[in-house]
Amino acid sequence: MPVSPLATPFPALPTLPGVRIGTATAGYKPWTRADVTAIAFPPGTSVAGVTTRSACPSPEVETCRANLASGQARALLVNAGNSNAFTGAAGAAASAAQVAALATLLDCDPAHIFPASTGVIGVPLPRDKAIAGVQAAHAALGTASWLDATHAIGTTDTFPKAAMTQAIVGGQTVTLVGFIKGSGMIAPDMATMLGFIVTDAALHPTALQAALTQATATTFNCITVDSDTSTSDTILAFATGSPLPFTGGATRAASGGGETTGGGEMSGGGEVAAIEPPPAFQAALTDLCRQLAQLVVRDGEGATKFIEIRVTGATTDASARTIALSIANSPLVKTAIAGEDANWGRIVMAVGKAGEPADRDRLSISFGGTTVAQHGTVVPGYDEAPVAAHLKGQDIDIAVDLGLGEGRATVWTCDLTHGYVSINADYRS
Amino acid sequence: MPVSPLATPFPALPTLPGVRIGTATAGYKPWTRADVTAIAFPPGTSVAGVTTRSACPSPEVETCRANLASGQARALLVNAGNSNAFTGAAGAAASAAQVAALATLLDCDPAHIFPASTGVIGVPLPRDKAIAGVQAAHAALGTASWLDATHAIGTTDTFPKAAMTQAIVGGQTVTLVGFIKGSGMIAPDMATMLGFIVTDAALHPTALQAALTQATATTFNCITVDSDTSTSDTILAFATGSPLPFTGGATRAASGGGETTGGGEMSGGGEVAAIEPPPAFQAALTDLCRQLAQLVVRDGEGATKFIEIRVTGATTDASARTIALSIANSPLVKTAIAGEDANWGRIVMAVGKAGEPADRDRLSISFGGTTVAQHGTVVPGYDEAPVAAHLKGQDIDIAVDLGLGEGRATVWTCDLTHGYVSINADYRS
Repeated sequence: MPVSPLATPFPALPTLPGVRIGTATAGYKPWTRADVTAIAFPPGTSVAGVTTRSACPSPEVETCRANLASGQARALLVNAGNSNAFTGAAGAAASAAQVAALATLLDCDPAHIFPASTGVIGVPLPRDKAIAGVQAAHAALGTASWLDATHAIGTTDTFPKAAMTQAIVGGQTVTLVGFIKGSGMIAPDMATMLGFIVTDAALHPTALQAALTQATATTFNCITVDSDTSTSDTILAFATGSPLPFTGGATRAASGGGETTGGGEMSGGGEVAAIEPPPAFQAALTDLCRQLAQLVVRDGEGATKFIEIRVTGATTDASARTIALSIANSPLVKTAIAGEDANWGRIVMAVGKAGEPADRDRLSISFGGTTVAQHGTVVPGYDEAPVAAHLKGQDIDIAVDLGLGEGRATVWTCDLTHGYVSINADYRS
Repeated sequence: MPVSPLATPFPALPTLPGVRIGTATAGYKPWTRADVTAIAFPPGTSVAGVTTRSACPSPEVETCRANLASGQARALLVNAGNSNAFTGAAGAAASAAQVAALATLLDCDPAHIFPASTGVIGVPLPRDKAIAGVQAAHAALGTASWLDATHAIGTTDTFPKAAMTQAIVGGQTVTLVGFIKGSGMIAPDMATMLGFIVTDAALHPTALQAALTQATATTFNCITVDSDTSTSDTILAFATGSPLPFTGGATRAASGGGETTGGGEMSGGGEVAAIEPPPAFQAALTDLCRQLAQLVVRDGEGATKFIEIRVTGATTDASARTIALSIANSPLVKTAIAGEDANWGRIVMAVGKAGEPADRDRLSISFGGTTVAQHGTVVPGYDEAPVAAHLKGQDIDIAVDLGLGEGRATVWTCDLTHGYVSINADYRS
C-alpha cells in the first residue's frame, strides 16, 4: 500500500523517565514485523481511557473498561493483526492468559495491565503465540523507541503517526507523547483506532480521566473516515508523575493552571495532583489529541484530501456536530471533494438530512473562505474560480453557518476515492 | 452510462380511463430527449403524498405539501434535469408560473396541480423554458405512454422503472400503476427519487394517504443506496375513482376489503369510498411500492449486487430497522459484498455501532441461509464454501437475529463499487 499523499514526517519524541518499551513478533499473520508491544510504567502511574461505544466490543475493550476502575497502570500491551473481537470465550481466555503472563513477569496485579488488539474480527487470539510474544516483548523492554512501538501497533496504516506537546503546570514543564494507529475512524477488519498517550505529569486518575474525556469530545469524536465505528476503538492516557526537567522547547503558557493544584491528592509519582486537571494540561492534552486525530484522517483509507468542516450558527454545539458529521459522512460530499467539484448542493443536501434545526433560507456555505451560497440560493455573481483553485489543494475548508444560534463544531474527514473501494472490496480474501 | 446489471424488463402496463399523459422537451440540459411530463386526471381524483424530511426542501416539495391539503388532483407536472432546490425566490416563482400555466390550460385550480423536479441543485428553473415545455406537454396529452413518461422523468437512471398490480376491492378489480426514477435513495444532484402511482380505485384522499403512509414505512423508507437523503424526494399517489372492468389478470384476494367500504364519503369518481383503506387495496399498494422501491435499488449508482437485509429478534420493529439500515449504509459492509467477501465481522461492527440494544453473545448472522456466527463467535466447523457461492450471485441475503425480542425489519440496498465513485466524483463538472 503506498504511503498516503497526506502523510507528515514522524516527529522527534523524547524518552520519558521510567517508561520502557519493548516489541516482538508473535506472528499473528505470516509476517516477520513486530506485532506485540509492551510498555512498562513506573508504580503509581495514573491511567484514563475512552473506548468504543459499540454494543459488540472486543474482550480487550471490556478488560480496559474494568481495569480503569483502579486508575492505576503498570503496563500497556498491544497486539496487531488480530482484533480478537467476536471470538467468544476462547478469545477472552487467550487475552486474559496473555495479560496474566505479563503480570507475572512484571510482578504486578493483572488489573493494572491494559490490553488492546487490532486486526481481523472473528479469529480468536492464538494463545500460544500471544504468550510467547508478550514474553519476548517483556524481555525487550527498554530496547524499543516510540517509532518502533508505532510501527508495531499498525495494521494497514501507511505511515507511523505520533505527536508531542509540552505544558507548564505548577511551574514545571510536563511532556505529553502520543502515538496512534488507524486508517479509518474505523475499518474494523484492519484499521480500528488505537491511540496511546504517555505523560510525565503528576495527575490523579480522576483528573486524567476528566481531561481525556473532555479532549476526546472535540478531537477523536470529531473525526470520521467512513462512518463505521470499530469494535475495538481505544484511547488510553498514562501519567507517570515524573516531570522532566524544563527543556526550553515548545511550551504552553500555564493559563493559571498552577493555581488549581492545591488540595489535590498524591499520585504515585510523588507530585501533588488535583482532582480537576490543570487548565494548561487540559489545553496541551486537547492539542495533542487533535494532532493525533488529524493524523488518522491523513491516513484515511484512500484519502487524497484532508477536509475541515466548521459549522457555526447552530442551535447548540451538539446540533452543530451532528450537522458537521452529516456533511463529513456523506458519500456524495466526499466523492465531490475527490473530484475537486465545488458541489455545494451536496452540502445543502447533507445539512437538510441531518435531522437537526436548519432553515434553508438562513444557510450560508463557503469553501476556502469564499462564500458560495447564502439566503437560500447561490450568491449573486458567484465566481467559481477561487473555489475551484482551493479544491485543487490537499487541505479543504468547508464552512457552514446556519444563522440560528451560537452552536458550533469542527470536524475533520477525508475524501471518498477509488482507493477506499479497492482497499475494502478485497481486504479479507 | 451502461444499463445496471440488475435491471429488469419494463412491464406491460394498462391505460387507465381518463388518465392522459403528455411529454415534451423543455431543454433543461443540452439534450433532445423529453424532460417535461404532464399527466392529467379526471375531476375528483384523490391524491396522497409523502415527501422528503430534508430541512432544505425544494419549492416543488413545499407546493406538493401545501396542495395535499385539499386531497384533490387534476394533474402531475414533472421536470427532469433541474431540481430547482436551493434556488431562492427566483426558483419558487418559476415553478409557480409553470404550475399556473398548466392550470390555465386545464381550466383548474392551481392548487390541484402537483409539481416535482429532479436534477442539479442550485440552478433556478428557467422560467421561459419551463412554461414553453409545459405548454407543449399539455398539447401532447393523450399521446404518450407510461414508458414515455418514465423515460421523461429520468435523469441518470440506467433503465426505466415501473410496476403494476391489481386488487379486488368491494367485488371490483382495481388496477395500480406506478413508475419511479432514482439511482440512489439519493444522489441529490441527479438521482433524487420521484415516484408516482395511479390507480382507478375510488378512494377518499384520507384513505389514500393512510394507505400510502403505511406502505411507505416498509418500502421506500427501507431502501438505501448511499445514505444520502434528497431535497426533492416525492412519492405521489392518485386515485381516479374509475375502476376498470375485471380483466382476468393477476389479482389479489379481497381479504375482507369489501366490508370496509360502508359509511364512506363520496370521492369525485362517483364510487363509495371509506376513510380507511380497504385491506386488499392496502396490500396491493404496499406490494407495488415494494416493487418500485426495489427497482430503485436495482438501479443504484454503480450497483452490481442487490442486497436484502433481514433483522429479527430486536427489541422493537423500529430498533430492527435502525440496525438493518446501519448494516445497509455501512461502507465496509457494502464494499465487502462488492468484493464477494463473506466478511461477517463487518456485520458485527455495523450492529455494534447502531446505538440500539444488542448483545454480542446472542447475535447470530447468516448469508444466503447459512449461519456463519452465533453465540458471540463463528459457528463450530464453519464452512465458507456455500457462503462464498451465494456471494457470487447477484441477489444477496443477509439475516441477523439479535435474540432479544420480537422486533423485525427488512431493508434493501446495493453494494458500493468503483462505479459509485466514478459516477459521483465528477458528475457536475
